[in-house]
Amino acid sequence: MIDKDTITAISTAPGTGAIAVIRLSGENALDICDAVFISPTDKKLSDQHANTLHYGTIREGDEIIDEVVAGLFKAPHSYTGEDLVELSCHGSVYIQKRILELLVSKGARLARPGEFTMRAFLNGKLDLTQVEAVADLIASGSKASHRVAMNQMRGGFTSEIKKLRDKLLEFISLIELELDFSEEDVEFADRNQLKVLLEEITQLLQSIRNSFSLGNVIKNGVPVAITGKTNSGKSTLLNLLLSEERAIVSEIEGTTRDSIEDVISIQGIHFRFIDTAGIRQTEDIVEKLGIERTLEKIRQATIIIHLLDSRLPVEELIRQIDHLEGFTGQNDKKRIIVLNKTDLVPDNQLNITRQKIKDHLSEHDYLVLMSAKRGFHLDILEKTLTEAAGINTSSENDVIITNVRHYEALEKSLAAIERTSEGLYRNMPGDMLAQDIREALYYLGEITGEITDNEILGNIFKNFCIGK
Amino acid sequence: MIDKDTITAISTAPGTGAIAVIRLSGENALDICDAVFISPTDKKLSDQHANTLHYGTIREGDEIIDEVVAGLFKAPHSYTGEDLVELSCHGSVYIQKRILELLVSKGARLARPGEFTMRAFLNGKLDLTQVEAVADLIASGSKASHRVAMNQMRGGFTSEIKKLRDKLLEFISLIELELDFSEEDVEFADRNQLKVLLEEITQLLQSIRNSFSLGNVIKNGVPVAITGKTNSGKSTLLNLLLSEERAIVSEIEGTTRDSIEDVISIQGIHFRFIDTAGIRQTEDIVEKLGIERTLEKIRQATIIIHLLDSRLPVEELIRQIDHLEGFTGQNDKKRIIVLNKTDLVPDNQLNITRQKIKDHLSEHDYLVLMSAKRGFHLDILEKTLTEAAGINTSSENDVIITNVRHYEALEKSLAAIERTSEGLYRNMPGDMLAQDIREALYYLGEITGEITDNEILGNIFKNFCIGK
Repeated sequence: MIDKDTITAISTAPGTGAIAVIRLSGENALDICDAVFISPTDKKLSDQHANTLHYGTIREGDEIIDEVVAGLFKAPHSYTGEDLVELSCHGSVYIQKRILELLVSKGARLARPGEFTMRAFLNGKLDLTQVEAVADLIASGSKASHRVAMNQMRGGFTSEIKKLRDKLLEFISLIELELDFSEEDVEFADRNQLKVLLEEITQLLQSIRNSFSLGNVIKNGVPVAITGKTNSGKSTLLNLLLSEERAIVSEIEGTTRDSIEDVISIQGIHFRFIDTAGIRQTEDIVEKLGIERTLEKIRQATIIIHLLDSRLPVEELIRQIDHLEGFTGQNDKKRIIVLNKTDLVPDNQLNITRQKIKDHLSEHDYLVLMSAKRGFHLDILEKTLTEAAGINTSSENDVIITNVRHYEALEKSLAAIERTSEGLYRNMPGDMLAQDIREALYYLGEITGEITDNEILGNIFKNFCIGK
Repeated sequence: MIDKDTITAISTAPGTGAIAVIRLSGENALDICDAVFISPTDKKLSDQHANTLHYGTIREGDEIIDEVVAGLFKAPHSYTGEDLVELSCHGSVYIQKRILELLVSKGARLARPGEFTMRAFLNGKLDLTQVEAVADLIASGSKASHRVAMNQMRGGFTSEIKKLRDKLLEFISLIELELDFSEEDVEFADRNQLKVLLEEITQLLQSIRNSFSLGNVIKNGVPVAITGKTNSGKSTLLNLLLSEERAIVSEIEGTTRDSIEDVISIQGIHFRFIDTAGIRQTEDIVEKLGIERTLEKIRQATIIIHLLDSRLPVEELIRQIDHLEGFTGQNDKKRIIVLNKTDLVPDNQLNITRQKIKDHLSEHDYLVLMSAKRGFHLDILEKTLTEAAGINTSSENDVIITNVRHYEALEKSLAAIERTSEGLYRNMPGDMLAQDIREALYYLGEITGEITDNEILGNIFKNFCIGK
């Protein structure tokens, strides 16, 4: 299963930079480098100590392609566990391409997506959850998603799973011992202890599995729709929310703006605003496109911010809320009703309006009074957004899963554990219990990669970037 | 003039990659690293040997921001000549930004464009032509521009200039010696030898200066316009020219297509096709936009490929050539007249047409017979393009300048040398000669950076990328 051939790829972001890094890993990595890398002292790179840096030139025949610094790692002490060289060259696309072509001409093969990391996995440097964490880490764009991925890469999740596996393995070995002595009808495995253990495992698996909804929010962000009549202030509110964030993210030059255009980050969680293009155009156009578009926005959202112009008669406002309810119904979407333009309404009128609306809302709804134009109470709206998203980011050390593959394996493992508990309750014989426990173990092993198949690996690595 | 403070920047291309490299250089580079980089053995990075690689974590307080590999270089044996650390981290934009912010919070400053290279220059690691070659190398997109930049970075140009300077310096010292003995009216400097030297220098400077037009072609490519009536086959020809090239450049994944869309490379020289968008649209639209657009294309081009449909009567073809001549006039643009669709015309008719057109053309024009649709004689057209561009790329080792700053300094140096020659011819006194030679030396020194001012440096570095 393990390819030993030597692979190469550009590992830095595509395009022109000051420098670029080309990786080369495999049995012949050092030989291939020796054929193209010339040091000023004519020493072979392969003769140098591991974990050292060497200045030299990359040559194709007499032609100097570039002056580079070669970083040398030797098996098994490298990312892949193989001999590995990182060539740091000038970041011209032309030079990157020339060096890559040269390495291929000397016997290297272009790496497939994630193939360096796959080798790290196959050589036992990383388990499968750590592999997945590497991809998540590279894709991470917020404090929270970064923290979850980092925790997973550092092995936090794996160690939890491993504890469960160890306990189950201990039990299964006792049960299997019983089977060897089946004629004598002895019980090595204490059924009561097993019952306690199974309950403990069930709770732990459930709590990890349930973290998936939070994990999903952390990884993918919370989709938010802003709705409301023309002139309720939708675009003003959107700009207010986005402008604060922009000031933060644009401080460091080189940060890509596009991808964060309509995303804000509160307590490290990304809130993604749906169809803001519509809002950014004149509100009239949005109005014209009408109900179908609004419905679509609401369908995608987890949270709906519904704007009301607090100057309108309270009866009209309640009509607008009821109108919204007609779309959202009794589902799991959270609604934040925003009474906007409060600065334009006398206090006593505002108090009456507020009370009447509050009485009309369900206990699951949130109500915020603000002036988007003046920026009043933006902090309250932001706090309400995190509450509505149901995020408690204070529990920093808990394991949070973000991966649907883990979720599904946990579900299957849980089902097997539940069957074991039932079997125990019904006094099923040991070999039946052992079979269910083995199934639970199988799915736990699938998570960390102790049990793998090519399909699982293929699915994991197909989404990796080339060069990692 | 030399800032000693510690600078940092992301040195790899912007965006998400498998890995990214963050550079840190300056007096406090190691101290700053020690404050954020934790190795598994708790050894300080600053206590390690130079030119070594170290695995560890970057931490902000208790939070692990990333697992990285730190490459350690110590002054003066680094790119900048200062203590320098290269942190190779996971290529998430978020992580890059966090690490950069952390380094800044510990006392580093964001590097200005080219500031690492500027320090290399100020610390005597590179001269100014080499500095400029670094920028050219990063921007190089063709074999020829890469070769010229590499030659310049390796010091080829500098050593030529240095030879000239040394000879002039020797002479000036002799002349200045004469001035010390002026009362005695002796001549240490042999005027005839000086005459020979000045002629030699003039020729060398002229030949280097004249290489600029070729250098410019190599660096910036040759702008080519394709003109011709509707249905003469412009888009077919363009696609033919571009398709061959595309097959080559798309072999390596990750090569950016956009920038090379309408560029082909022949013998390592880029030919850029102007306004191909117009040609790609229906020819009718081009026709409608009419004469103004055609004029603009012709104005920008160095070479004009004018297509003729060889099925038309020869009188009509000659009319079309004359019509083109009305625009181009007697200027320095090269014209390649292409008789297209030759496969649709009987041989005898084609021969007559060819001869009549040939008789009508000037000796500076080129004539090519081909079928763009069938790909006949594409090789001849390509050969004609390199001829028309006046490129002789066989002289690989000659110095070629590509930089307008060098061109201007050479011009000024030449003028001073010519004044010296004239002074010599008129038997001007030694101190007058010395003044002119000193001026020639000044401008030669400006090229390599032995003589600099802030304006020159500012102009050079403002076009650098950040991180180099």
